[in-house]
Amino acid sequence: MKRLPLSKAFTLIEPGPVTLITTNDGERNNIMTITWTMVMDFSPTFAITTGSWNHSYAALNKTKECVIAIPTVDLIDTVVGVGMCSGADVDKFDRFGITPLKARHVAAPLIKECVANIECKVIDIIGKHNIVVLKGLAAYRDDSRKEKRTIHAVGDGTFIVDGRKIDRRKMMRAKIPAGV
Amino acid sequence: MKRLPLSKAFTLIEPGPVTLITTNDGERNNIMTITWTMVMDFSPTFAITTGSWNHSYAALNKTKECVIAIPTVDLIDTVVGVGMCSGADVDKFDRFGITPLKARHVAAPLIKECVANIECKVIDIIGKHNIVVLKGLAAYRDDSRKEKRTIHAVGDGTFIVDGRKIDRRKMMRAKIPAGV
Repeated sequence: MKRLPLSKAFTLIEPGPVTLITTNDGERNNIMTITWTMVMDFSPTFAITTGSWNHSYAALNKTKECVIAIPTVDLIDTVVGVGMCSGADVDKFDRFGITPLKARHVAAPLIKECVANIECKVIDIIGKHNIVVLKGLAAYRDDSRKEKRTIHAVGDGTFIVDGRKIDRRKMMRAKIPAGV
Repeated sequence: MKRLPLSKAFTLIEPGPVTLITTNDGERNNIMTITWTMVMDFSPTFAITTGSWNHSYAALNKTKECVIAIPTVDLIDTVVGVGMCSGADVDKFDRFGITPLKARHVAAPLIKECVANIECKVIDIIGKHNIVVLKGLAAYRDDSRKEKRTIHAVGDGTFIVDGRKIDRRKMMRAKIPAGV
């Protein structure tokens, strides 16, 4: 898992992949599957929608830290499994054979099996809307792995896998920020 | 463009496609390309990140209405083109040959060439974070068209096209809301 310049980290979230978000409450690691995410700026700042219906929310709210991990299509059943059980009942790292890696700035772990990870701190919670605002602190990408296709939840129990890529960098040059 | 039950409208945004958002300021229609979107609940409520740097923002803020239209891959150059110019300078419907259709609840138009449209009203603006909170009022999907693949902006000038679909409806049944 190599460092990725923080200026590129928003490109991990902008396409809208399903994410796994890890927390550590001081005693245990936990993970939640979150598909409701949004880029807010290039620094990068992200929004996620979550609340006390997720067991991880208590740790997120207490520690003000998390890691956003990006799984690829080979992890589809882990992603669904993590989303279908609660950290109140099970150790999800243990149950799903997920490997936690030590992060630099936060106690929440990176996920070894994911193609990318972003260490984040909570900079605001908009309670009225269940929006948690995150600032990225460090980003990592595993460029050595072959499978790089992420998955997009539709919300009805189906998922869309990344297909082919289209390049419009020339047309868009004037709007792409430096360092991307 | 057939009516889609409002209970399914969040499934148009959850996968994270690039969207075209239309407004009407009382005199003219306008469009902006927005990739920073998020589902907030199933009712449906959506967040988008935008602000006064977008010409459309003034109309959105004044009328408190818009339409979220979902383009497919055949519209890639329209999507990029709309994002690269300003409604302050050009009539984007005219320049890009986009056909406005009359909506039911808002003055902003649906886009005929898009695979889906959601009429929305603004229910909150979180100015500190440039987040606009939208409530869906009516949704439409063109089930007759062959091309249904949406596109996901990476943010570096490249785009990912929808690939194959994976079905995990059985595993996820307990968490899929009624009417989806």
